[in-house]
Amino acid sequence: MAVIVKKFGGSSVATPDKIMAVARRVLREKKPDDKIVVVVSAMGDTTDDLISLAKAITDKTYGREMDMLLATGEQVSIALLAMAFVELGHEAVSMTGFQAGFTTNEMFNKAKITGINTDRIWEEFNAGKIVVVAGFQGLTQRGDITTLGRGGSDTTAVAVAAGLKADHCEIYTDVDGIYSSDPRVVPDARRMKEITYNEMLEMARLGAGVMHPRSVELGKHYGMPIHVRSTFTNEPGTFIREEYTMEEKEFVIRGVTHDTNVAKIAVLGVPDQPGIAYKIFSTLAAANIDVDMIVQSVRVMDKHIIDMVFTIAQGDVPQAKKIMEKLNSQMDFSGLKIEENVAKVSVVGAGMLGNPGIAAATFGALADAGINIEVISTSEISISCLIDSSKVKEAVNAIHSRFFPA
Amino acid sequence: MAVIVKKFGGSSVATPDKIMAVARRVLREKKPDDKIVVVVSAMGDTTDDLISLAKAITDKTYGREMDMLLATGEQVSIALLAMAFVELGHEAVSMTGFQAGFTTNEMFNKAKITGINTDRIWEEFNAGKIVVVAGFQGLTQRGDITTLGRGGSDTTAVAVAAGLKADHCEIYTDVDGIYSSDPRVVPDARRMKEITYNEMLEMARLGAGVMHPRSVELGKHYGMPIHVRSTFTNEPGTFIREEYTMEEKEFVIRGVTHDTNVAKIAVLGVPDQPGIAYKIFSTLAAANIDVDMIVQSVRVMDKHIIDMVFTIAQGDVPQAKKIMEKLNSQMDFSGLKIEENVAKVSVVGAGMLGNPGIAAATFGALADAGINIEVISTSEISISCLIDSSKVKEAVNAIHSRFFPA
Repeated sequence: MAVIVKKFGGSSVATPDKIMAVARRVLREKKPDDKIVVVVSAMGDTTDDLISLAKAITDKTYGREMDMLLATGEQVSIALLAMAFVELGHEAVSMTGFQAGFTTNEMFNKAKITGINTDRIWEEFNAGKIVVVAGFQGLTQRGDITTLGRGGSDTTAVAVAAGLKADHCEIYTDVDGIYSSDPRVVPDARRMKEITYNEMLEMARLGAGVMHPRSVELGKHYGMPIHVRSTFTNEPGTFIREEYTMEEKEFVIRGVTHDTNVAKIAVLGVPDQPGIAYKIFSTLAAANIDVDMIVQSVRVMDKHIIDMVFTIAQGDVPQAKKIMEKLNSQMDFSGLKIEENVAKVSVVGAGMLGNPGIAAATFGALADAGINIEVISTSEISISCLIDSSKVKEAVNAIHSRFFPA
Repeated sequence: MAVIVKKFGGSSVATPDKIMAVARRVLREKKPDDKIVVVVSAMGDTTDDLISLAKAITDKTYGREMDMLLATGEQVSIALLAMAFVELGHEAVSMTGFQAGFTTNEMFNKAKITGINTDRIWEEFNAGKIVVVAGFQGLTQRGDITTLGRGGSDTTAVAVAAGLKADHCEIYTDVDGIYSSDPRVVPDARRMKEITYNEMLEMARLGAGVMHPRSVELGKHYGMPIHVRSTFTNEPGTFIREEYTMEEKEFVIRGVTHDTNVAKIAVLGVPDQPGIAYKIFSTLAAANIDVDMIVQSVRVMDKHIIDMVFTIAQGDVPQAKKIMEKLNSQMDFSGLKIEENVAKVSVVGAGMLGNPGIAAATFGALADAGINIEVISTSEISISCLIDSSKVKEAVNAIHSRFFPA
């Protein structure tokens, strides 16, 4: 007997026909003794349609009431999918977030799961049923319906898998696994059989879009293997887990990512006094602006003057601009420049620990391609380079072919 | 301070604009200290749309999963109406059936309310909020979502009013009250200021369609006054309550109703033996066929032979026909006739108790109009006559003008 959680997104259940296809697929792969939970999102554009209804009433944003509204989307899909299983001859039961035992905190629109009680799911397993669970939702201690926000349905799936001590959690998507780079940018990108939680998290942080970091973090916390695979094929995809099961580290580097949602802020000629960096970054943090790469350099000619470069998301530029101009009027920088024509390319791999050649190889690949590096930052398992955004495709391919030779 | 429950049906909340109109209306009538619960149905055709989705998956009918699906309809309207109140400047909170404290039995699709806990509603009242409650739904002891079936949202409204010991329960509809007869048939029909629960139940049973008997019964049980009024005007409508508040029984008769969904079965020449009637009616009852008017007569010429006439709903004719033909083959009636061109006209009024002239006046009105009466049946507060269905309009007007002179 295996306990398996399978999650299908909104595009996989967009129509009654697609819902039937999901049910058929699950039944085809199910062994007689398997206990199966299927987590689903709302059908196709349902969530957007519900948001439009709310917008026809008000411009304001509503926490609790919006969650009340949006939670109906998944409730429709679970009911229909449960009917589809029964129509195909297998007993099934649908469960909303609260019925599946999800409790959350009261942060409406982006609630955090605080607990899961799987008693009812086990009851239904023992009655021989497939259990269909609404993704993305839970209930507060007080009895209010919440939604989990971005990455919510994947998070539901991993959480219920952890609660059930499932064998693994399958995330079905429109790609067939995790690639060494975005296949739309790098035609030679390789699908990986396995990747560690840490590498996946670093890749997601650095621009890889397949998995939301939140569910990967939960998987890491509970040691729940996540199998990312295609809705449309029967091939195995990529397993995300703590360690490689095989000694199959053919490639030191697991992925080359890029992120074009980057803006660079250069603060030039700042007097080198204690507390200057604190002042700048605490003011930005207070405005909820995430700062990513930071480089501070002391001028060779005047050791009392420093230059500072850092990056933020492009969406934060208007607000950051106001803040920086205000700080400039107080501190009198000799120059302030904000540029959006930059991008970040990164290499990720747990194997680079104790492998000093990786950084050199990365910089070499960019140099050989004639691409200038503006800023460099590193973590234990990644190296990122800020470059001109017009050179992204060239840069990613140059680095990728260095680490993944044809 | 008054506690008032107001219920608006699906056509009143069919669009975001209509939802805003409902919110405006409620706020316009609300006194500062009033505690208001608004019960709503699903928007417009939502329920039909959800049923179509299910039908695209399966021809079977599903209890639990269908209720899971349909309950989303009201959940959408409550969220939007709560937003509409806040948009107009008044705090509000939406509640699903289970949040509003409704527990039901496990009869999916037509669950019966087993209890209501209004603690959370009082908490929200005390926080100054208007409470918007989803009609038509509840939760079983085990935590499954149920729907209440026909008349469900009205029943929710009356039940929550009873639970809150509200001052009264307002049911908003597309007519402006209870009329002495169907205004489409009787142009002179009068709107009544008041009617008793028993009269309303009798009128509903005898064909008046405004209120489902279920909610009226609940109102009667808890002594909760029900105010039936128009969504479109500000006029008071009709109060349904235990007794008239005023000595204003201008009319002994409260209403003249008609029902064309009637078929007549005549069994002729049955040997007059004990148990014959039992055999016929228990066989029909076993097939869930309701029998309404029953007349049995002994033949003057042969006291051992009886004739029997009774009525059923037209939808039951095909099944009743099979049953009666089978009984005929066993019992050998001398004749069996089933006719659908009949209709029932009735007069209803608690005042007819101890007022023997009512029956005579009813029969007289029909006789003067040249309309033949085939069967007569009476209850404590009603008299019904079976007539030719082509004469319904004429009959209802003749009786109405006898009791409600211009």
